[in-house]
Amino acid sequence: MIKLFIFGISGKMGQILAHSLPDDFTLSGCACSSRIDEAPSDVIIDFSSATATAKVTALADKLNCPLVIATTGQSDEDNRLISECAKHHAVLKSGNMSIGINLLLKLCSSLKGIGRCEIIETHHAKKKDAPSGTALMLKAASGASEIHSLRLGSVVGEHKVIFGLDNETITLTHSAADRKLFADGAIKAARWLINQPYGLYSFDDFLMSEKHPSLFHSER
Amino acid sequence: MIKLFIFGISGKMGQILAHSLPDDFTLSGCACSSRIDEAPSDVIIDFSSATATAKVTALADKLNCPLVIATTGQSDEDNRLISECAKHHAVLKSGNMSIGINLLLKLCSSLKGIGRCEIIETHHAKKKDAPSGTALMLKAASGASEIHSLRLGSVVGEHKVIFGLDNETITLTHSAADRKLFADGAIKAARWLINQPYGLYSFDDFLMSEKHPSLFHSER
Amino acid sequence: MIKLFIFGISGKMGQILAHSLPDDFTLSGCACSSRIDEAPSDVIIDFSSATATAKVTALADKLNCPLVIATTGQSDEDNRLISECAKHHAVLKSGNMSIGINLLLKLCSSLKGIGRCEIIETHHAKKKDAPSGTALMLKAASGASEIHSLRLGSVVGEHKVIFGLDNETITLTHSAADRKLFADGAIKAARWLINQPYGLYSFDDFLMSEKHPSLFHSER
Amino acid sequence: MIKLFIFGISGKMGQILAHSLPDDFTLSGCACSSRIDEAPSDVIIDFSSATATAKVTALADKLNCPLVIATTGQSDEDNRLISECAKHHAVLKSGNMSIGINLLLKLCSSLKGIGRCEIIETHHAKKKDAPSGTALMLKAASGASEIHSLRLGSVVGEHKVIFGLDNETITLTHSAADRKLFADGAIKAARWLINQPYGLYSFDDFLMSEKHPSLFHSER
Repeated sequence: MIKLFIFGISGKMGQILAHSLPDDFTLSGCACSSRIDEAPSDVIIDFSSATATAKVTALADKLNCPLVIATTGQSDEDNRLISECAKHHAVLKSGNMSIGINLLLKLCSSLKGIGRCEIIETHHAKKKDAPSGTALMLKAASGASEIHSLRLGSVVGEHKVIFGLDNETITLTHSAADRKLFADGAIKAARWLINQPYGLYSFDDFLMSEKHPSLFHSER
Repeated sequence: MIKLFIFGISGKMGQILAHSLPDDFTLSGCACSSRIDEAPSDVIIDFSSATATAKVTALADKLNCPLVIATTGQSDEDNRLISECAKHHAVLKSGNMSIGINLLLKLCSSLKGIGRCEIIETHHAKKKDAPSGTALMLKAASGASEIHSLRLGSVVGEHKVIFGLDNETITLTHSAADRKLFADGAIKAARWLINQPYGLYSFDDFLMSEKHPSLFHSER
Repeated sequence: MIKLFIFGISGKMGQILAHSLPDDFTLSGCACSSRIDEAPSDVIIDFSSATATAKVTALADKLNCPLVIATTGQSDEDNRLISECAKHHAVLKSGNMSIGINLLLKLCSSLKGIGRCEIIETHHAKKKDAPSGTALMLKAASGASEIHSLRLGSVVGEHKVIFGLDNETITLTHSAADRKLFADGAIKAARWLINQPYGLYSFDDFLMSEKHPSLFHSER
Repeated sequence: MIKLFIFGISGKMGQILAHSLPDDFTLSGCACSSRIDEAPSDVIIDFSSATATAKVTALADKLNCPLVIATTGQSDEDNRLISECAKHHAVLKSGNMSIGINLLLKLCSSLKGIGRCEIIETHHAKKKDAPSGTALMLKAASGASEIHSLRLGSVVGEHKVIFGLDNETITLTHSAADRKLFADGAIKAARWLINQPYGLYSFDDFLMSEKHPSLFHSER
């Protein structure tokens, strides 16, 4: 049984994570903005925000365990603290915990430049921002010239990257069934991380070493 | 101006190729089952059939030029002749001249094993065989457990490879707009081949060296 | 505020319904297999099973309110009880409470016969039965010759009905984002039903009168 | 054998039409901008332009046969001439000869207002104008709030109309395999028209009477 500490448990993703633990994980401790309930843990997952970097890296030191950081927007000082922490613990940091999106980014990079490319992203009508952060990442990876954002119904999230060649097109589609895919990805990364030596890892490091040596091996 | 010899010009693909030469290609000679019109050429494209292997390799010797073989079903003896030919000429051999399908095969291989996979292929109602040869190649590459074949209207050809993960799916789609994409691919491979040293090449060799070092470099 | 009685509250759909009541609904009473908590109500929604038909129609009499029946598999005697009940109350009965699926069935009927038709339905890997009940309904409505069932990842439910014509195809797709769409549909039907005179209604009666006079008007 | 007169035979669609006549049609005469080759005919199809309205209606009088007008942009005077012509001949006029698109317009109208709607249209990279004329017609029919235009590769033409409801979406897709679908539609309309009494008809009149009484009956 893997003892999990959830940092940022009162936030949206922290809540989803707490409610979707698989059978081999148990909640050992948690922290929200107002308090920390410490306990011996095997791994920390941080879904709070970058402003808590000092606190969560200090916690990794105190509990002496690996740390998965799922927040974005770290300052230089935050990144320095994370690098320092990674000298004594295995630390994985990624702004996107979706296995599928991370794979799609790889595929997009590999097709970049084969032909004109455009992106379509569709989300529920309540999503205010457009384009989505994921669409921007896919644009950078694919070299797409345009992003088309649709806001419709209750769509959890769909991203399509379309490459046009002479007389043929290739379309790469990612479709999210439930927002808890980000919790799933963090759990899987954590399960992998507890067996890694000290150091700073990206989500790709996890994907590459675990599942897809054929595709990703060359880039390490 | 690249002087092209079309071997198998009276067949379906030979005809399409003859009618879709780009501006930098000119037809220098051709062969059908009944006769050969020889002339100095820069490259031969063979869309006839594997039974003509002896003739087309002999032609490559006689014209002393590179050879693109777009046929399938070679016997051991045919392959021996091709290998022999490749000692003196640049020879590219592939059963599928679509750039998009060859890229899709690469992407499928890289995702193989990430989750349960199924394939949907749709072709016009007049196509008799099912599943398509391309779908079988995609199944081998992706590890798909099933192929669903639809025969509808006048669809030129669509292949979808769908990978299911926890709470997300990745779908890779290839859509053909016109059968002349195979002629396009052969032309592009030929344009590349005339600058290569003697040897036997696959379509991947062309794709890898030309366009996508990031994805394919490691595997050479 | 509409006072709602949920019949079959301990089942899967009953639970989802109880947790997704809109602001203008309040839970006035409920029944599971072991007990009934009666209270004055404006409408009953029955997500239990056809075996409870006698109980739920008796309840409609007792509470003197409209009844939405969302179960399937009624016997002749069950149907007789329902018809009897509809003499004194507004009763709506449908085996499928999805507004989108009911609309799709209408569209499929209108295209039936224009060309060869096939259906693709995709659901999560844990769904045991294939094809889905909805796919069978769509097959009957569209005249499709085949259903292709994919079982992948965590897909909530997607149904595609593809019609092939000469040189063109029409594809009608329904995509479910969350199973609570059936609760949504039942709620909307209930909101409509409480303003109808006594009688037995189908889901189409609700759709036709409410939203789509242009399409459905002729058939009443 | 139906004797067909093609008006505007030197244009793009006139050429496609001339090359895709079915077995029961024969070319009896034709006209381009510079000359008219008259001959007894059973029906005229006009793929020229609205500026030739006076000429083509005069031709219908002279040959005393039905007339299919597939051009757009008629002036008031042109429309007066067409109405006059329809007093003595069966005349069908439509700016879009695709059976599929005309059906899709009907379906869109029937769904208008059920939820927020957006349109995606994809065409080959050489298409200069955006959005497509068809997309604008679909927008008017569906009440879509936005059109997203993609210009990619060699895509013949795809239109998607997406309706978002609570927890579900309905997507209507039309996909063109070949531009000759417009010739197909004109041929089918012509085959129907020669058996109709004098009068002015729309493409819907043809679709309604021929194939889809269930959907379209009410609107006549």
